[in-house]
Amino acid sequence: MNRKLRTVAFQGERGAFSHAAVHKLLGDKVTAVPCTRFEDVFRSVSDGNSDAALIPIENTLHGSVHENYDHLLNYDLPIVGETHVRVAHTLIACPGVRFKQLRRVYSHPVALNQCLKFFAANSQLERIPFYDTAGSVKMLMQDLPDDAAAIASSVAADIYGANVLKRNLEDDRGNFTRFFLLMRRGTKPPLTGTEWKTSLVFTVRNVPGALFRSLSTFALRDISLAKIESRPLRGKPWEYLFYLDFLGRVDDKKVQKALGHLEELADTLRVLGSYPKGA
Amino acid sequence: MNRKLRTVAFQGERGAFSHAAVHKLLGDKVTAVPCTRFEDVFRSVSDGNSDAALIPIENTLHGSVHENYDHLLNYDLPIVGETHVRVAHTLIACPGVRFKQLRRVYSHPVALNQCLKFFAANSQLERIPFYDTAGSVKMLMQDLPDDAAAIASSVAADIYGANVLKRNLEDDRGNFTRFFLLMRRGTKPPLTGTEWKTSLVFTVRNVPGALFRSLSTFALRDISLAKIESRPLRGKPWEYLFYLDFLGRVDDKKVQKALGHLEELADTLRVLGSYPKGA
Repeated sequence: MNRKLRTVAFQGERGAFSHAAVHKLLGDKVTAVPCTRFEDVFRSVSDGNSDAALIPIENTLHGSVHENYDHLLNYDLPIVGETHVRVAHTLIACPGVRFKQLRRVYSHPVALNQCLKFFAANSQLERIPFYDTAGSVKMLMQDLPDDAAAIASSVAADIYGANVLKRNLEDDRGNFTRFFLLMRRGTKPPLTGTEWKTSLVFTVRNVPGALFRSLSTFALRDISLAKIESRPLRGKPWEYLFYLDFLGRVDDKKVQKALGHLEELADTLRVLGSYPKGA
Repeated sequence: MNRKLRTVAFQGERGAFSHAAVHKLLGDKVTAVPCTRFEDVFRSVSDGNSDAALIPIENTLHGSVHENYDHLLNYDLPIVGETHVRVAHTLIACPGVRFKQLRRVYSHPVALNQCLKFFAANSQLERIPFYDTAGSVKMLMQDLPDDAAAIASSVAADIYGANVLKRNLEDDRGNFTRFFLLMRRGTKPPLTGTEWKTSLVFTVRNVPGALFRSLSTFALRDISLAKIESRPLRGKPWEYLFYLDFLGRVDDKKVQKALGHLEELADTLRVLGSYPKGA
């Protein structure tokens, strides 16, 4: 790993799924820096206060995080890595507290709603919404109740010194979040690999076949797409923005030709970065 | 409006944005039926307990609601309408309570986080997470505090007899949610229009150019796309599912030819419905 990558900004409390993603991708030697909002994460790297940012970009249940695509367009921070983390919900309580003592469970409402089968099977448990999954563990360890637990990632239990009582509470095991690692332009990227992906955003005027012609620039060169998504531009009826990921690296000759060709056809085109395909 | 469409299931409490969408699309004569989970909404129509369902399918900040696409594939409930609702956050308190009395504001954490500029400008207000936007208004009207307010849609204020103190609290005015209206197959659709859209889901094996060939079936017939999105099939590496909306009606001759052609190229194809383009 690159010696210069020491601090990585993420959104949420310590122990959030983004925090787990930082260490999955970069190991335990980097320092993860919690930020309140996604924009704070981008600004932290842009201003030089952190070396890198790790941001969620899509989830298998909730779709793309358009807000972060918007920030990617507003900040000049290339994508240099990706990783996927399974959103596994864990029941966490203070040390010494046993499951049969529990009456209340705190977590973010989205997490509580992803564990409905667990709550249906344990009707003695009251669900109490809290600001944040990891934050609810932090709160328990401050107040030390003997009848309350939290739902969060198991990383949050480790960080705050709490106990895991049950694992895999989530109704749907297919809940994964994909994250991008961002750094300032000109910084040496810390990761390498054999298979590369490139992400870009482009706009085309909405005439029939516009997208088809845009995709021809890749299809005619046998470049495989990994993601395509249209996003209507609100306030600009009939204009669309496209997110596109393909297999290949921006400095491959074939890729450069495809991008040159796409530039002819698109109104705007912005390459967000090339990065090793992540696990 | 069709006489048979009397009850419409939606997810959330009365006064939720989905509830507002029901009346925006269908007027005030239909009865909106609140359900706890999205699956309950689908089941309510499928079992004949409600005449129709209104479900959110994508949001301009948060992307597609993959969970509802999954339910669309699991239930045979054709899409017969669409509408868009702006997510406008309103500050709501009990009658007689004035803004300067307020110290606490309840709402769903997602809504609280979408009003950060308002809270930055009003630091005397403590943010308290609650299960549901409309549910926080309902709770206020039961407890009648004189120092608390809720953030929800203005419809929630009307329904529970509360007062709107401030409008447009949200940081981003471009927050819209798109909804689909669903009915049982064979029911006469209640809406008509001049411009139609069709939504479908298909899968192709991930060989280079597979999507390009699939889109040729529309491009070669000058059919305009309104949405395209790939979704990786987790557990089936290299297989993708695509959501596609185009302008046209499934019983147009040109559309039938395009769909026949797409059927040749795709592994699976499912038309989710044709419906008048919604405001």
